[in-house]
Amino acid sequence: MAPRWKGRAAEAKALAEPLSKIVSRLQSSLVESNCQGLLSGCSVLLAADPEQTELFNHACFGRPIITSEKDKQWFQLSLEEALYLCSVMKCIKIVGDDKCVKDEEQLWHYMTSKRACFPILFKAYSHLRMKNWVVRAGSQYGVDFVAYRHHPALVHSEYAVLVLSDEEGDRSARLRVWSDFHCTLRLCGSVAKTLLVLHVSKNGNGAMSSSSLEHYCVEERIVTRWNPEQSRENQAIVQKKLCKS
Amino acid sequence: MAPRWKGRAAEAKALAEPLSKIVSRLQSSLVESNCQGLLSGCSVLLAADPEQTELFNHACFGRPIITSEKDKQWFQLSLEEALYLCSVMKCIKIVGDDKCVKDEEQLWHYMTSKRACFPILFKAYSHLRMKNWVVRAGSQYGVDFVAYRHHPALVHSEYAVLVLSDEEGDRSARLRVWSDFHCTLRLCGSVAKTLLVLHVSKNGNGAMSSSSLEHYCVEERIVTRWNPEQSRENQAIVQKKLCKS
Repeated sequence: MAPRWKGRAAEAKALAEPLSKIVSRLQSSLVESNCQGLLSGCSVLLAADPEQTELFNHACFGRPIITSEKDKQWFQLSLEEALYLCSVMKCIKIVGDDKCVKDEEQLWHYMTSKRACFPILFKAYSHLRMKNWVVRAGSQYGVDFVAYRHHPALVHSEYAVLVLSDEEGDRSARLRVWSDFHCTLRLCGSVAKTLLVLHVSKNGNGAMSSSSLEHYCVEERIVTRWNPEQSRENQAIVQKKLCKS
Repeated sequence: MAPRWKGRAAEAKALAEPLSKIVSRLQSSLVESNCQGLLSGCSVLLAADPEQTELFNHACFGRPIITSEKDKQWFQLSLEEALYLCSVMKCIKIVGDDKCVKDEEQLWHYMTSKRACFPILFKAYSHLRMKNWVVRAGSQYGVDFVAYRHHPALVHSEYAVLVLSDEEGDRSARLRVWSDFHCTLRLCGSVAKTLLVLHVSKNGNGAMSSSSLEHYCVEERIVTRWNPEQSRENQAIVQKKLCKS
């Protein structure tokens, strides 16, 4: 399925300013200002100056929240987003209630205590973000994430992402029976997204720390209905091309 | 959600001829002609005379199949449909390849060997049929059945039905995680159906025969999203009514 840009101007705008560049600029700005996020339940709060506010919005990290403070804009980051900026992009520090900077080990422990499958979800999130996809929550489509080629204002999300693993628990509870497959594929089809299944598994017995991200591996699978009519047509086109060459 | 009739004429037609009457007429006609169905893989084949053909179509049992025979119309019944006509409605007999009539015990054994969760599905199917719902396969909506108030030509299906049980296996694999709930509810919403979850469980240790249908019990649950805005409005209406009275 081709990307569905929100108009031609949107496509041109996206091509002129690749997401990788925007994210790099955000990274530099955050490093420069020695930015700190504050752990707060299942999110991380972070104050941004006007330039960073624009970059956060353009790179699509977090959600702006309304406060009475006039000179800075607060953002609420999900745990995945915060840990990605902290441990992969190395551009923010995260502090707890005690105002002390948490190391990666402590963060990993805290986040996993909030959600047992956090390592699996974080691996999937990072996997897509590193490839410069914009990754947002997918609960309204009954999946874990949706992935956009560029900012959601410019393009519709292309992939509905389900994150599965072999480990016991929530991550192994989806797509086990045909009716779930049918339901998920029909929904994805009706909202013009492709179902992307990321299967995250462990490489050996790495320790539970975020530096062990490399101990997890991701298998990507796209699931679509097989349409005999379409397949036959493609076959004909392929044969035509072969005859011509 | 109110039933969605396919026009006013359709509603009038349905009210003039209740489904229970059509099914009774089909039952009498089949008993009279001593009708026999033929077990064939995962379905039962059955030849109908012109009157029965019309009644099968109106009562929505089976699918007509095209053959070169001119004087009779063949119907392909699902295992649930066939066993319902045989053991609940007592209006057909079912024979095997050997042309011998199978008793209920043999049929139950055969059907369960084709699909381990057949007893659970059959209990759910019978439960709805006995209440005069038209029950058809729901795979295109990612559920087990869809239920219509009358013939599908007159009304859209109202319920998307998932059949669950506590027993290990496929019947316990749905709606275990929120993302599956979200997916199923979003899909049901987009096709204007209400999600009906039938939870089938065993009453004690009945033997595996269809006469033990009564050893299973069905709990019906309707699942909808809770909409705070709507609930508030209803609250206001209720209060208004209370004030008026």
